Amino acid sequence: MENLLYIAHNLQNHLETLRQFTSTPGFGVTRLPFSKEARQAVDYIKDQMEQIGLRTWIDASGAVHGRLDGTEPDAPTILIGSHYDTVKSGGAYDGIAGIVSAIEVARILKENKVQMKYPLEIIATNDEEGITYGVCFLTSKALLGRWTITELKQLHDTAGESIYDAILRFGLDPNKIEDCKIDSLNVKCFIEIHIEQGPVLDSKGIQLGLVDCIAGLQRYRIQMIGKSNHAGSTPMDMRSDAVDASTKVISCISEWAKTEGGGTVATVGFMQVFPNALNTISGKTEWVLDCRSSDEEKIQHIVEKLTQKLEEVKSKTGVDYKIEPLVHVKPGYMNKELLEQLEKSCCTFGYSYQKIMSGATHDAHLMSEEVDTIMLFVPSKDGISHSPEESSKYEDLARAVYVVSDMISNLN
Amino acid sequence: MENLLYIAHNLQNHLETLRQFTSTPGFGVTRLPFSKEARQAVDYIKDQMEQIGLRTWIDASGAVHGRLDGTEPDAPTILIGSHYDTVKSGGAYDGIAGIVSAIEVARILKENKVQMKYPLEIIATNDEEGITYGVCFLTSKALLGRWTITELKQLHDTAGESIYDAILRFGLDPNKIEDCKIDSLNVKCFIEIHIEQGPVLDSKGIQLGLVDCIAGLQRYRIQMIGKSNHAGSTPMDMRSDAVDASTKVISCISEWAKTEGGGTVATVGFMQVFPNALNTISGKTEWVLDCRSSDEEKIQHIVEKLTQKLEEVKSKTGVDYKIEPLVHVKPGYMNKELLEQLEKSCCTFGYSYQKIMSGATHDAHLMSEEVDTIMLFVPSKDGISHSPEESSKYEDLARAVYVVSDMISNLN
Repeated sequence: MENLLYIAHNLQNHLETLRQFTSTPGFGVTRLPFSKEARQAVDYIKDQMEQIGLRTWIDASGAVHGRLDGTEPDAPTILIGSHYDTVKSGGAYDGIAGIVSAIEVARILKENKVQMKYPLEIIATNDEEGITYGVCFLTSKALLGRWTITELKQLHDTAGESIYDAILRFGLDPNKIEDCKIDSLNVKCFIEIHIEQGPVLDSKGIQLGLVDCIAGLQRYRIQMIGKSNHAGSTPMDMRSDAVDASTKVISCISEWAKTEGGGTVATVGFMQVFPNALNTISGKTEWVLDCRSSDEEKIQHIVEKLTQKLEEVKSKTGVDYKIEPLVHVKPGYMNKELLEQLEKSCCTFGYSYQKIMSGATHDAHLMSEEVDTIMLFVPSKDGISHSPEESSKYEDLARAVYVVSDMISNLN
Repeated sequence: MENLLYIAHNLQNHLETLRQFTSTPGFGVTRLPFSKEARQAVDYIKDQMEQIGLRTWIDASGAVHGRLDGTEPDAPTILIGSHYDTVKSGGAYDGIAGIVSAIEVARILKENKVQMKYPLEIIATNDEEGITYGVCFLTSKALLGRWTITELKQLHDTAGESIYDAILRFGLDPNKIEDCKIDSLNVKCFIEIHIEQGPVLDSKGIQLGLVDCIAGLQRYRIQMIGKSNHAGSTPMDMRSDAVDASTKVISCISEWAKTEGGGTVATVGFMQVFPNALNTISGKTEWVLDCRSSDEEKIQHIVEKLTQKLEEVKSKTGVDYKIEPLVHVKPGYMNKELLEQLEKSCCTFGYSYQKIMSGATHDAHLMSEEVDTIMLFVPSKDGISHSPEESSKYEDLARAVYVVSDMISNLN
């Protein structure tokens, strides 16, 4: 196989080109679905695929496919990919690093003339982030046949353009969205290389993360309803203070998550206070609990403790509450046998690795519902992501390319 | 003396007229300083004072004075008053109820031909609320000689008009602001009748509140600085969560105030979370502690506990903090001998009363720094104030008029 630094150099070339396709130069990478920058990325990716001899096409979701046939015509396909869209003012690695790594995997297999029983198909997916239309996973939902044309017409951006019309404007045929559906029985596996977007690998100095589970996510909106009153003239024992009551609940949440353990996390990152005045006791707060775990029972324990605490605080302070579920996504488990293969490949090359839970969601999360899926993380510097400061080492990405190439070779 | 219901009826007539002088009809009373509505109120008050035979004038701060001479030319003056301005969409009682009550006091004394040794002077003060220029107590500061012409020129409203120019526009001479100064040695006392703006009297069914102290007030702005990060991919033990840390501090504050007792109150009514996103650990919060007590030591204890707790939470969570003093007003103590006189008058009429701390500040707060001052509260329905729903009973105001008239008569 080629020198690691040569692969790292290729990856660097790809990523330095692609980071220029942004609508916010100087303020990180902004590459929204169906934008001019998305078009530039699609053209570049398609061209690179073709240069290494892949057969390419763009599907109705805007995803770029590049296929390398195997030796057995009826063998199921190995899918490998990640997304090319970004958040607003995001980084140059989230998503796109997995695409260019997949291109390097295909190049290595082709140039090394590895006899592949299974076809290999790269998919550069579109609109994983869900920024524009409020719904994630445009391509991966299409791959699983989960879009109707009606839905594409209903969802629209803030300017009023529907996904349907955006696909048309992009030169594609939204009426063919249902043709994107894969035959899951004819898929060997889905592989995604991605930056960690968290601090675990970087802080420990570990080169690769083997994802064993993508966390389940539940979100709840909590409203706490007290009584707004003058902060000076209302005695302490005649108050129904929504901020006081809310903080008595929120302050416990981090301990509950630590007690559950196993990578379980719980966060209140959003909170609003009404009327939010210096001299007025708050009559209402609204906040959201975001809770993630590989084990849904652990999330359930936290929600039970939350409800108990809300009741307890209500009986002590008179502050009432409403709790409303917003999001419920089940954990996505990666395929154990393929994970073992990945581990073997890591050992072959002598790379440091650890099993890791992904707290963020990915295309691999959805794909794991229907096909055997694995995911490989590379370290994110200081755990920073969705930010212009997002950074990963090209050598770490090249290691992921080595490991995945080796694993695919061994699948034969 | 006259029938209580007759006085209540007069008060009702006054207040029903004055509540019409609002720039927000249908949305409570908005009567900002130097507005058209302020002019209407000034004209009405001056006319009512003249109808009962008071000598009237308008001073450079926009306050209306109405004077009844006493029998001894050199005797110090009894001042009685409150403010005619309101907050935006406030109620029909805050401030103005004390002015019309004072007019009724003067009318009763005059009509009953009470031989008054001391002159009685009503002052209907302007801009107590401080909404327009960000500074409270326009008239009472003028009465204590605390304005310079330069300051009047520097402070301005959001449209850029200075207090100086507003006074000119109102037809008064701002260059005479220093002439408003009273000779405190020639003042017998300052008396203010006001609605409670809190729930104590109403909830207990007590007719009158004898204010013994206007609370000291201290405000502190606290910033807590953690590290913003992905709510999914950052393990619990690698977080520096500003919301988690802030709630661990804020949740203790109400208990600290209860421990201090003696009417001490502490409130966090304002809080902002950054970046305030569902899926992001908060990197920063900003909130304000408002703390009031008749005893500054009690406030100091709370601030010490706050600092200790901030340190403790910092060492546990890594979330740093800044604490910045915003406001420091000392408590205002009411005159004990005059309070005893008021108590005697309450007993004479058989009215229920209690000593009470004022958590809100008033003209009487400032005046108490230089002259003997007393303040009398009437119940606020459900403790609601600074709201269109603000309400007090005319009979309760009439009781305050009886008690103050009686006390003044007895001062002779």
